[in-house]
Amino acid sequence: MTYCVGLLVDRGLVFMSDTRTNAGVDNISVVSKMHTFEVPGERFLCLLSAGNLATTQSTISLLKQREVEPDKRKPPILSQPSMFATAKLVGDTLKEVIARSKPTGSESSEPRFTGSFILGGQIKGGRPRLFMVYPEGNFIEAGADNPFFQIGEHKYGRPIIIRTYDPKMELADVAKLLVVSFDSTIRSNLSVGLPIDMQFYEAGHLTAGYRHRFDHRDAYYRQVSEGWSEALKTAFDRLPPFEFTSTERAG
Amino acid sequence: MTYCVGLLVDRGLVFMSDTRTNAGVDNISVVSKMHTFEVPGERFLCLLSAGNLATTQSTISLLKQREVEPDKRKPPILSQPSMFATAKLVGDTLKEVIARSKPTGSESSEPRFTGSFILGGQIKGGRPRLFMVYPEGNFIEAGADNPFFQIGEHKYGRPIIIRTYDPKMELADVAKLLVVSFDSTIRSNLSVGLPIDMQFYEAGHLTAGYRHRFDHRDAYYRQVSEGWSEALKTAFDRLPPFEFTSTERAG
Repeated sequence: MTYCVGLLVDRGLVFMSDTRTNAGVDNISVVSKMHTFEVPGERFLCLLSAGNLATTQSTISLLKQREVEPDKRKPPILSQPSMFATAKLVGDTLKEVIARSKPTGSESSEPRFTGSFILGGQIKGGRPRLFMVYPEGNFIEAGADNPFFQIGEHKYGRPIIIRTYDPKMELADVAKLLVVSFDSTIRSNLSVGLPIDMQFYEAGHLTAGYRHRFDHRDAYYRQVSEGWSEALKTAFDRLPPFEFTSTERAG
Repeated sequence: MTYCVGLLVDRGLVFMSDTRTNAGVDNISVVSKMHTFEVPGERFLCLLSAGNLATTQSTISLLKQREVEPDKRKPPILSQPSMFATAKLVGDTLKEVIARSKPTGSESSEPRFTGSFILGGQIKGGRPRLFMVYPEGNFIEAGADNPFFQIGEHKYGRPIIIRTYDPKMELADVAKLLVVSFDSTIRSNLSVGLPIDMQFYEAGHLTAGYRHRFDHRDAYYRQVSEGWSEALKTAFDRLPPFEFTSTERAG
């Protein structure tokens, strides 16, 4: 599996993705699931991927490859007029790759080599936007009511985001929130693993923001991971214990 | 879906289960998934169920029904010499029910009407024990390294148990921990819903402990649900924000 999050706040976008890929628990590797594209001053895009690695890598390659064709100056991913058109391109390309990998002679079966993407970024003239792109090629957009998307092993790390998210957060606080969300997931599920990649995008900058890779030696990651366990214990201790009431049977 | 937890501490056992059952999001009902059995002074047992409701209810009925047969004084669930034998009986009965519900003419297909149980309790002469019973009829036991079992939608509520569990906890603190775990799950997933049932068992008592049902008006549930959101925010604010370092690209 995988765990990736893209999150929209007033200040911009934050992306985080793990790097574990596996073909069984005895065959794991480190592969970045974060791909960024930019034309500084004009657009910045970040793609996070989940699903079959051959499928998502092919999709990324197709989005970039036409760069070398003589009649085009830019790859298709950097040639779209809007974020909406970019999301449509990503969806169409993904759908095409999945259709191509269908085993011959099994026309009716479900595709096995599926995948999905989180796409976020900003193009000059537009605002920062965030999309979730499905293997069927369609997509949904984040807004005030659903300001973040998760793909992969999303359940463990979801409650902390739901309880803590605030659109006024600084990007540094979003980073802290996502480190907690990833640490909770990594402690619970072997299929998500360090290192994790983080990418900031500041609204209006139209160029890549700060990027960081957290590994198991990262001082901040360790501080949050250990500090959060302590902080949770303190928070937990402060909540009132359950009190037996006389109306019910006591053991 | 469902969410049930059985948890073993030095002081005894705590069981918690939600009550939502559904055949699609437009067809939901409230059904308790917690079944207790006791011979006061001799044994106490608690079963939590997940999966197809017809399967788990049939299993419970079979475990109880022989009560009325003239040649037996006790139902099978109350006639076993040990917790191990009780777990085996639950597993065998569950497997039998699942096998019987297999559609005719599809001998090779996977069973559709599957289920699983958490079984905990104590029988005179033994210690409190906790088991997870699988649809195949086999089972595993909780111990110092794996002191709790979850069935159903277990992922959302797992990180808080992993980070907070301590074998020395009082049962009232376990109740608090499980209320937090259930509230995190209920806020994230529609298929798990209030009310939730809770059952205490105090080690050595050989009789049912305190039982409580939390609904949406329950003062303690609301206090923990709201208090925990506040406590998390405070804990989160106290962690250091992520700091940009000069060695990496700043946006």
